Amino acid sequence: MLVWALPGIPEVQAGDDLAGLIRAAVAADGDELTDGDILVVTSKIVSKAEGRIVHAADREEAITAETVRVVATRPRADGGVTRIVQNRLGIVGAAAGVDASNTAEGTVLLLPLDPDASARALAAGLRAATGVRVGVIISDTLGRPWRDGQTDIAIGAAGVRVFDDLHGRLDSAGRPLIVTHPCVADELAAAGDLVKGKLSGCPVAIVRGMGRFVGELDLPGAASIVRDAERDMFRLGADEAHRAGYEEGFAAGVAASSNEEGRR
Amino acid sequence: MLVWALPGIPEVQAGDDLAGLIRAAVAADGDELTDGDILVVTSKIVSKAEGRIVHAADREEAITAETVRVVATRPRADGGVTRIVQNRLGIVGAAAGVDASNTAEGTVLLLPLDPDASARALAAGLRAATGVRVGVIISDTLGRPWRDGQTDIAIGAAGVRVFDDLHGRLDSAGRPLIVTHPCVADELAAAGDLVKGKLSGCPVAIVRGMGRFVGELDLPGAASIVRDAERDMFRLGADEAHRAGYEEGFAAGVAASSNEEGRR
Repeated sequence: MLVWALPGIPEVQAGDDLAGLIRAAVAADGDELTDGDILVVTSKIVSKAEGRIVHAADREEAITAETVRVVATRPRADGGVTRIVQNRLGIVGAAAGVDASNTAEGTVLLLPLDPDASARALAAGLRAATGVRVGVIISDTLGRPWRDGQTDIAIGAAGVRVFDDLHGRLDSAGRPLIVTHPCVADELAAAGDLVKGKLSGCPVAIVRGMGRFVGELDLPGAASIVRDAERDMFRLGADEAHRAGYEEGFAAGVAASSNEEGRR
Repeated sequence: MLVWALPGIPEVQAGDDLAGLIRAAVAADGDELTDGDILVVTSKIVSKAEGRIVHAADREEAITAETVRVVATRPRADGGVTRIVQNRLGIVGAAAGVDASNTAEGTVLLLPLDPDASARALAAGLRAATGVRVGVIISDTLGRPWRDGQTDIAIGAAGVRVFDDLHGRLDSAGRPLIVTHPCVADELAAAGDLVKGKLSGCPVAIVRGMGRFVGELDLPGAASIVRDAERDMFRLGADEAHRAGYEEGFAAGVAASSNEEGRR
């Protein structure tokens, strides 16, 4: 697997044709896209091309608008509040993906409206123009429970199998594998981040040699990675769940006492 | 960044010298380790080399012994119980990392006793034998909240900067970056998993071209990635936290009612 950051992508503006910019940058790099290549594209440039920009003054309002469900909140040292929320894409993360780094002064970026659709359009454009079968991952940087730091994950995908389905496969001792769904899309996003970095000005990585994960454009996208809240053991922050339980318990305790009292 | 699975590592036995096996496999592959190479080593072979094997019949007992704190539990379809626990390494995951795939019949594997120390010993051995500065990541496969599927993460590290510290760095618009701690170690583990797979019989990946993350052997290890429970918004499962809150609230409600009653 060869992974490198594609140089030569200019500052992206609303309305830009990303497929065209990427093809030009690949050509300027003296290369050409090859069957089975996977492009890992930072969501920021997709948002910019789609004009998903709002005034920074409206940041908190934008976060609220992008939020479907508050998962946890915690006061910050700066007096603000960190909001861990599930956004309209189903992704749980801080600030609903609303981003203020590498944006024009006074503006913040929202996530693409439908990153799987954006990935599909980009992959389709590149396939049509080059005649080779490439996959596209749209990546974003997120923190996670239990571990410090951030990693890149896939918020959009097209033409790539997001999971390596090992269900029913046997290990070297002939027993069924227990780990059956490696999330290839998130691992590709992570590999892309290692070469793109946050400062390089290279928002696109090319992954070559993983063609076995590349397939049709109608494969399930990154939305299929999201686990529904009702199936999730961590659908609510510990403090939030404790508080909700306390309130229910308190009311039940009062009610139980008054019933008891009534019977005396 | 070039990442490939190293062929030719034999089935590892208790007491085997992993540094020796890896050097032999690299040589048999017609290659040699290069300054800045990072080896991503599946924890399973480290456990095997360290003899961390117990009888499968003792699996549940082994999980209990490895558990420091139960984070969440949920009944499984097969009648058992999935236990998400914090293990003695601080890592939160299912079954405390006790593993039954690719192990000898009738046995399960525990995680290495101290994966950072194992990584340090391996990196030191390889550096001494080859004269080049390599880093070592010991990886394990884990599920995660909010997203289906599993990814590989770093449970041990030596000679590698586990975080890319961007604190105080400025973005392209001259503003401080908000994302300041990309977890390089976890991203390297993920990249390694893409080439190792679960079936290939290749438990070691070599990452070449990321030498900027390679440093002294006394750099903080993977233990520094673990977030303390008290700082973690998801230190307890939502159901568990709700239940604890309910019980406290019920007792408080009963107490409040009886105080009220006493004053009448």
